Formats: sequence, structure tokens, C-alpha cells
Amino acid sequence: MIKFTSFGESHGVAVGGVIEGCPAGLAIDFQSIQEDLARRATGKASSESQRREPDEVEFLSGLLDGVTLGTPIAFMVRNTDARPEDYADLKDVFRPSHADFTYQAKYGIRDWRGGGRASARTMLPYVVAGAIAKQLLKQQGIEIHAEVKSIGGETDPAKISELLERCRAEDDTVGGIVHGSITGLPVGLGEPLDDKFQACLAKAMFTIPAVKGFEYGDGFAMASMRGSEANDLMSSQGAEQGGATWQSGKVEFLTNHSGGIQGGITNGEEVFFNVAFKPIPTLGRGNRHDVCALPRAVVIVEAMAALTSISFMP
Amino acid sequence: MIKFTSFGESHGVAVGGVIEGCPAGLAIDFQSIQEDLARRATGKASSESQRREPDEVEFLSGLLDGVTLGTPIAFMVRNTDARPEDYADLKDVFRPSHADFTYQAKYGIRDWRGGGRASARTMLPYVVAGAIAKQLLKQQGIEIHAEVKSIGGETDPAKISELLERCRAEDDTVGGIVHGSITGLPVGLGEPLDDKFQACLAKAMFTIPAVKGFEYGDGFAMASMRGSEANDLMSSQGAEQGGATWQSGKVEFLTNHSGGIQGGITNGEEVFFNVAFKPIPTLGRGNRHDVCALPRAVVIVEAMAALTSISFMP
Amino acid sequence: MIKFTSFGESHGVAVGGVIEGCPAGLAIDFQSIQEDLARRATGKASSESQRREPDEVEFLSGLLDGVTLGTPIAFMVRNTDARPEDYADLKDVFRPSHADFTYQAKYGIRDWRGGGRASARTMLPYVVAGAIAKQLLKQQGIEIHAEVKSIGGETDPAKISELLERCRAEDDTVGGIVHGSITGLPVGLGEPLDDKFQACLAKAMFTIPAVKGFEYGDGFAMASMRGSEANDLMSSQGAEQGGATWQSGKVEFLTNHSGGIQGGITNGEEVFFNVAFKPIPTLGRGNRHDVCALPRAVVIVEAMAALTSISFMP
Amino acid sequence: MIKFTSFGESHGVAVGGVIEGCPAGLAIDFQSIQEDLARRATGKASSESQRREPDEVEFLSGLLDGVTLGTPIAFMVRNTDARPEDYADLKDVFRPSHADFTYQAKYGIRDWRGGGRASARTMLPYVVAGAIAKQLLKQQGIEIHAEVKSIGGETDPAKISELLERCRAEDDTVGGIVHGSITGLPVGLGEPLDDKFQACLAKAMFTIPAVKGFEYGDGFAMASMRGSEANDLMSSQGAEQGGATWQSGKVEFLTNHSGGIQGGITNGEEVFFNVAFKPIPTLGRGNRHDVCALPRAVVIVEAMAALTSISFMP
Repeated sequence: MIKFTSFGESHGVAVGGVIEGCPAGLAIDFQSIQEDLARRATGKASSESQRREPDEVEFLSGLLDGVTLGTPIAFMVRNTDARPEDYADLKDVFRPSHADFTYQAKYGIRDWRGGGRASARTMLPYVVAGAIAKQLLKQQGIEIHAEVKSIGGETDPAKISELLERCRAEDDTVGGIVHGSITGLPVGLGEPLDDKFQACLAKAMFTIPAVKGFEYGDGFAMASMRGSEANDLMSSQGAEQGGATWQSGKVEFLTNHSGGIQGGITNGEEVFFNVAFKPIPTLGRGNRHDVCALPRAVVIVEAMAALTSISFMP
Repeated sequence: MIKFTSFGESHGVAVGGVIEGCPAGLAIDFQSIQEDLARRATGKASSESQRREPDEVEFLSGLLDGVTLGTPIAFMVRNTDARPEDYADLKDVFRPSHADFTYQAKYGIRDWRGGGRASARTMLPYVVAGAIAKQLLKQQGIEIHAEVKSIGGETDPAKISELLERCRAEDDTVGGIVHGSITGLPVGLGEPLDDKFQACLAKAMFTIPAVKGFEYGDGFAMASMRGSEANDLMSSQGAEQGGATWQSGKVEFLTNHSGGIQGGITNGEEVFFNVAFKPIPTLGRGNRHDVCALPRAVVIVEAMAALTSISFMP
Repeated sequence: MIKFTSFGESHGVAVGGVIEGCPAGLAIDFQSIQEDLARRATGKASSESQRREPDEVEFLSGLLDGVTLGTPIAFMVRNTDARPEDYADLKDVFRPSHADFTYQAKYGIRDWRGGGRASARTMLPYVVAGAIAKQLLKQQGIEIHAEVKSIGGETDPAKISELLERCRAEDDTVGGIVHGSITGLPVGLGEPLDDKFQACLAKAMFTIPAVKGFEYGDGFAMASMRGSEANDLMSSQGAEQGGATWQSGKVEFLTNHSGGIQGGITNGEEVFFNVAFKPIPTLGRGNRHDVCALPRAVVIVEAMAALTSISFMP
Repeated sequence: MIKFTSFGESHGVAVGGVIEGCPAGLAIDFQSIQEDLARRATGKASSESQRREPDEVEFLSGLLDGVTLGTPIAFMVRNTDARPEDYADLKDVFRPSHADFTYQAKYGIRDWRGGGRASARTMLPYVVAGAIAKQLLKQQGIEIHAEVKSIGGETDPAKISELLERCRAEDDTVGGIVHGSITGLPVGLGEPLDDKFQACLAKAMFTIPAVKGFEYGDGFAMASMRGSEANDLMSSQGAEQGGATWQSGKVEFLTNHSGGIQGGITNGEEVFFNVAFKPIPTLGRGNRHDVCALPRAVVIVEAMAALTSISFMP
């Protein structure tokens, strides 16, 4: 249903996007968009991030009095923090584990100012589109939620704070895992082979800079499991197979190792997944955001899950 | 460049596919296709799998005297092992952790014979297309290789054999991990955002039935790493950043935590990755293939990696 | 909704196609498919064309007991009339106004046997897919009809017969125009810009070999009209503009110069159009089908109109 | 190669677009873009249209110092002439032969201000993208040119002027035909079936508002021709077929009834075509642009031809 095209470099004129296929008649909740942008900018939940002056979205088309027309919705956020001179020393250098070398090799030219098209700021348009997608999904009872699961292998908040302090002191960075969840999805989303729900979800997550792994349901742990412990039984069991007889009406799942998807198609249970982020490769800049991408990545994971889900809605 | 459309149910007339965009003038190596089909059928390397009567591919179009015309290459393999009566008892049952329920819910009808479109046999056409893709890639110095990394958490061959025996005795199944590798890729494949190399590779892997996780480079382990240990330095180092000065000519990477991709674009190093498979959900059938999907999945992982790689070639 | 991929050369093993996205639960009317194939083979209406042994379709996937599963429907028709030796003298020759030269230049190789991929026989799979599309459309009250409008500028049947005889005697060929009509389309099909209904219809028609022109509604004649004679008034007229007040309920169109489409979107009136065919370029073969492509093209125009219409259905 | 996404309503904030896939390293010729925008705004050739204050394009991304980065190029033109109150009387009226009714029916809402997404102003972004495409094509020796062929059936400039005066006096409008030409195209562009060069060109032309017909080569006239007069012979003739022997080296075409395309693939000759426009449906507004769309449509036809051509370039 929804197709999204994004544009922009971190220190160019603006970042933005065009949403095609958004249904007509939706009264856009601009407040929720700005809240998600504040979460992206600060890494804090919307309740805590209000005070920061957020990135300001300008909508260019597709709306009449704040209501969607069904035509392409274009929007942009100007890059106000553009101090390219801060990056002048990077003009002739390939930073390790950045995209500097690959962009230069691919295009013969690159925007060396703050990462250009490879900057995490290019996720901003996805956050805007994702916020609109979440609004559409919510109308149909579908909720998207993500949160930090672990940082540097630690799951305890106290230990995470301590670890982040240590990294900051040592001018180092650290990776982590974001856990995501989609509830309320109808049964039947996804295609048997080339557009399995999980395949499109994985593709969306690997679009986020620094993502190195994705798993859904019990994920990698299932590689060590036996079938007898991994199978999801249904309440109305059949004979020796433990399967439900389908004439028996609504099926109830007793477990959800599968993560809400079977054969590429949603089964009505919660879709849950983990996304692994490598440490930010830029070291020694000494400001707090550079230490770990995770807090700010949470809302991006939500956006990607929302855009994937909405693309399957009939 | 290459676009692939597949078709077929496990117990229908045939499975097959159409390859569009294959360059003209390629003399198809039919032998290598049949070898890959034998690997899929037996789970054995091509040297050991020769004796089995393989699935036989019939090419329907796109070739003249075995040479590609540049037009769509259609092919099929007839389903000879079709004994639908073996599955008659499944007609009214949803097997646990199968796609029976989701197909029935999505379509209101399903091919209950042996899994239908959700059967692992639907991977056969990808193996054929992948074998052709591998042939094209090889001409450009690109090699694809996959192998079983672990089964049920075991990496030692002896212990794996033992574990498989135990599962067979207990009418149980077990999952595992396939490791894949792509070498010889040119620098510059992949798009900055919506078609990152790793995102398309992940999507392709999650198309394979039973796949629950994908990671590339150091993958999930990087979520516990520090930036100082995760970064890939280059031989011609710059100043405090440890980066290479780009005028210095060819860059040499000293490590490859990144897995050959930076910013979604290949950097010329080996692309390596792991694919996690859940245990086969069908229990208690007592034949050897049912115990673990991994050996037969290796050639499918290769095919998916080949189809992904070829899709980025200029 | 429906995506169609075709394959095949005229003297290869087979021609065929894969239909993706066909709804599940349709009981295929095989008889109507064979009738359309007979119309394509003989150029006669289904009532007259029964005696000829038709091309025989084999369905390879996507059906269970003749009912669609919602999965890809693959089919093929084997090329039985393959006498490539008839064409051996064409191996080293570019025939005028054929695709021989362009294929050779593009691919460096071509299937010289009877036109290969450029043969009109490649339309056969579209006729099969179109017959299925027509069946789906009919269920929703949409009818597709095409007919010969003129041949060599003549519209009178007697004069057309005379002209065809003369061409045959002179080993010459002649072009003509097919008129097409789609009735019963719901209001609202088509997109404002990049996928206007007429744009997709035009693209589909120009896929047919020998088509040189397409017009819809009053077409080229409108280039000589005044606005005052070309506008389509509505029954419930507004003020000085002659427009309908939209609160006034259902609009009734008094004329249909527009051809059932306004702003790229169907308005519920008949969509009608003309397709211009050049003369068959192969001269002097002396059999009747070579004289004029029009009678056999009628069912192809219907198929293309059906495939276009179904692609817009929600 | 190039993919274009446009956005905007005539009286919204802005119209614009995103160009994906433009090669890196192109120094944009901003002057030629503004000249084409002036042609669109005034209907005059660039030499005559300079004095008018043109629409001003703002580029938002994809450029560094005016040179393309290979990343998405986003741009917009703000709608300064937005006086929606002029259209307030149209809020509740469907104007005849406009898209008012179809938009309302499709979306349940419409931007009634000046045509919204159905306005001819939505072609502005295509003119910008087309100007960039023309620049890329010119580098490869490909030239695009369009001109008014006839208005209201008249081809003589004096009679056209007279006719336009008469229409203006009578508060009427009139249609016409634009002739287009593409020279310098390499041999081999276009696909055998689903993406024939002429099919994509036709689709692009029917995207332009008010277009009712498209023909290429000798077009509709070929429907009245004999094969013996329609065929394009080649200089190095073969036997009885009048075909060239392909080993004989470069083929020279003696005629070009085909319009530069055979079997959907360019043959290196000029591609030429006609596009039929219906009269503007808005009557009685009394300003000169309302009388006939043709002069302003010329540069739009060029843009569409350029975008189609560039999409086939390797």
C-alpha cells in the first residue's frame, strides 16, 4: 500500500521524503510526529524529550487542512546544524568502518560533510513516515513498540549506565540490541516466498546504519533447539501431530516460538524480533550521543517495523 | 540485472521458474545445475551425491543450442514423487509450526499435499537459477561458498553425527547454522539506503523456509563489542582517526569485522554471514532427511547469495 | 493485483507464463481459455473456430482440482509446429521491418527460427492470462470486447473481403484498426499521474507486435475540436461551468468524448479505444494468415485490455 | 537507470520531485533547467521567454557544489501564485471533463484549488527532471526535440494565430498535435515484450494531462498501407526478401516508416511520434493560456521523451 522514497545528506539543504499510497482522509497527528523526532534526536522517551527544540517538519504536498488527499505526501526537514567546516579535516581521509571509502569508490565523489548520505540523520525521514504509518496502524488496532534490550551485553539499567560512563571516559563506543514487537496484526499478511513478512522486516532493519544482525521469534537460539521443544502447539489439538483440526473454528496458539509468522505469513500472534547494532565507529568525540547509538535507534526500529507492516495491509 | 520468478507446489505438476535479464551468449553448464540439484536432494557435496537419480530440469525457453538468448529462461522440474494419498490425513489438520493454518486463513484454500507452496521443494527453482547465477559470477571471479557451521549447537563433525543419530532414534529434529561466504566481489555493489547489499542478502535468506536469524560480519557479537575493537583499520592510516588518506591509492583492510560491506556498499573484502535454521517441525516420520534441514539447505543458501550478488552486478 | 511474466520463442520448446496475484478460489473456465486460443489461431469468433485443433495449455502450478490456490499459476503450450528448417535461409539475413537486426544488435545472438521472441506467437501466453483475467472481471460485471474496425482503410465487410483477396493475389499484406471497449468498470481506477488508466492501457497495447498507434475516447479527432464541442456535460449541471454539483448525488454523463477516463481515473462510463496495426512485414508467403494480422489480433487486444483492467482492481 | 517520483498540488505548498539513479559527477546546468521552466510557463521558445520571472527551483539534496553525488536529487518549486479564493466557487462543483468528479469519487476528498494534483502544473517537476535527463543524453549525442505540429487541424502558423484569436474572442479552446523526435539513440534500447521502447514512450506521453492519442513512425496511416509500401528496406539487400545479410557489416536503412524501433528495440534511426491533445476543458476564463495547451506542452513532451530515453540507457 505505502511506498516511501527518501532523500537528503546530513549537511545538505534538507532531508525528507515522499510517501505514496497513503489513504485519503487521515487527519495527520503532527504532535506524534514531532514526539518521534524528539525521541530520535535525544534518545529519550517522548515524556522526557519534550524540552529539546525538535527538528521541524515542513509538509510540501498531499495534505489539505492537515488531512491526507491520497496523493503523494512530500515533507522535509532543513539541516540547520550544518557546520561543514567541522568536517573539513575529513575531506581527504577515509575513516575506519565508515562508508567514506565505499562511497568514494562507488561514485568517484562523496559528501564528506558529516557522513553525507551515510549519516544516521538519513533515518529522520523514515521516522516521519513511520510515525504516519503507526497512526494508520493504530486505527486498525496494531501497535508497534521497541526498546533497548542490551548494551555491550548488559541488560541491567544500572550496569548499562555504568558501562556508558566508562565508554565516555575512555573515548570509546559500544554496541547493543534493540527488541521490537508488533501486536494486533491480522492473520494473513505476507507472501509465501518472495515477500515473506519476516524477509521484508529483515530488509527494513538492515537499512538502518550499523545493524549487523536480525532474528525473529526465538531466532538464533532455535538453531540449538530440538523440534519437540520449538514447535508451537495449538489449543484444539489433532491426533499424533499435535495439530489443530481446522474445522474446529478459531485456533489458539499455546506458545509463540515462531514469532507470529509461519510460512512467511502472520498467524495473528505477536511478531517480535531483535536487531543487533555494532558500536558507533566514530571514536573520541567526547559527546554523549557518540557513545552508543541504541537509545536513538529505538524509534527508528519502530518506524521500520511500521513501514513494513503498513506495506502489507490490504 | 537478473529478475527471478518461481512457481510450483510440492505435489502439483511441476516446480520451476523464469529468469529474466540473463545476459545473452552464456553457454549453460547443465552439469553444474544437476550437481547442485543433487546436493539439494541428498544434502551431500557434489562429489558424493552423484549416484542418486537427480531431479531433471527441462528448459522451456531462452536458449538456442544451450546458449542464452537474452530472453526469459523458463524451466521446470516435474514432481514425480507425488503420492498425495500419503498426506490425505493432513487434509483437515493444521500441523504445529507449519504454514497450514496461515495459508488456510489467507487464501481460504490450501494445497494440503506435502506442504504445497510452503514445502522446502519450492526452493528447487532457486537452486537452478542460483546455479546459473554462480556460473555468471564465476566468469567475473566471484565465488560463493556455504557450509554447515553447527547443528544443535555442535560444531564438531563427530558430535554432530552422534546428535543426528540420537534425534533419529527419538523421532526428533534439530536446528543449526549455515555459514556463507562471497569472495571476489568488486567494490561498490549496493545502494546507500533502500537496497543495501546486506539488506537484500538478508531478505533473500529469510525467503528460505525455517530461517529465523541472519547476521553478517561479526554479527550479533558486535552488540557486545567496543568501537575500539570492532573498527576495521586500513593499511594506509591517516591521523588520529586511524583512517586511510584516500589519495594514497589502493586501500588495504587489516581486519574485516564489517563483513565486506560498509554503508550498504561492498568494500572488496569477503562478505561472510550466518543463517540460523529452526528444527524441522515435522516430527516422527523416521526418515533421515527429516532429522535436520541443514545439509540440504547449504546449496540453497549458496543459491540465494548468488541471486543477490548477481542482482547488483552492472 | 495481477502480475504477469511471459516466456518463450516461437520455435523453442514452449511458450507460457506465470500469473502472480490471482485471487484464490476461482474455478478456472478452461473452455473459455481454449476458445480464446482458437480465436488467436484462426482469427475467427469462437462460434466459428471450434473445429481447428487448438493449442493445448498445460497448467503447471497454482491450481488444485482446477481451482486457484492464490499462488503463482504457471502454464505452457508446447510448440508443435516447429520446423526450423523452413527458416534456415533466414539465418544470415535481416528481413526488412522485422526485429532480426535489432535483436542481433542488442544480444549478439538471435533465434532466427520463425521470429523467435519477436514472433506474434509470443502473444499466446497473454491470451491465456487475459482469458483468466476476463473471467475474474466478468464476476464483477466488467466486460471486454474488441473487433476489427477497419482494414486498409475499409470498414465495409464486403470491401474488406475484396481487399484481402486482392492482397493475397498480389502477395501483399495490409494493416488495419482494432476497436476495443471495456464496460462496467467501477469509478476510481487509475492513478493521478504515473499510472493513469489510459497510460497503462496504451503501454499494454504497444506491447503487441505491429501496433503503431493508440487513441482513446475521441482520440486524435479531439486535436481538431473546440472545447465547447469536446466537453462531457453531466446531467445535474452547476452554474455557468455546466458542471454538476457534487452534493447532488449520482452524476450522469450526457456524452463520453473522454472515453470513460478523466484525470487518469475511470469515471464509470465505457472505456473505448482504437489500436492501429501496420501491415505484416512478411510478404509473399501466400497463406491467408499472412495477409492481415487484424482478425487474429482482436483477441490479443481483449487480453491486453483485461490484464490492464484487472491490474487496477482493488 | 533513472527513477523519478513527483509530488505536489497546484495550490499546495510546492511541487517537486526526487530523481533516483542519476549518475554521480554531472555538473548540473541550472540555466537550461530554468529555460525549460520558462518554456513551460510561457509557451515560448527559450530565446523569447527569458523576460518572464520563471518558477524558481530549489535543490534539496543530491548535489555538492552543483555536482551530482549519485544519491537522490530532490527539488521543489514553491507555489507562489496560490490564490485559492479564486476557486472557492468550485468547491462544490464538478467541472465538465475535469478530474473533479473522479478524484472525489476515488478519494472521498479533493484539493479543489485550481485542479490540485490534476492541474497541468504537476508537469513542472517532470520538466525539471527532463531537463537534467536531456543534459545526460546530450553528453551521449542524443537530442530530443518537440514542436507544435497542428492546432485545431491547422498547420500553417498564420492560420493557427487566426484560429487562436477566434477561440479567445469566443471564450473557447482548441486541441492540437505535438510532434516529437529523438535522434542519436544507440541501437538496442528497449525490451522484446513488456518494456518495448515505444510502449514506455506511449505510457509517458499519456501521463500528460489532456493527451488522447499517440502514434510513432507512420502511425495510424500505416493502418491503411500495404506491406509493400510500409516496409523499411536496408541498403545491403539480401535475396527475395529485400533483407540485409547480417555479416555484411553496418546496415543502412533506406526508409524509416518504422519510426526507429523494430520489435520494441531501437534500430539507430530517428524515433519520431505524434501526441494528440484534446482542447483545454476550462472555458470562458479569457486569458491567453487557457485557449490552447499546445505551446506550453511542447517542453513537457520533450521532458517525457527524455525521461523515457534515459531510463533505457545502460
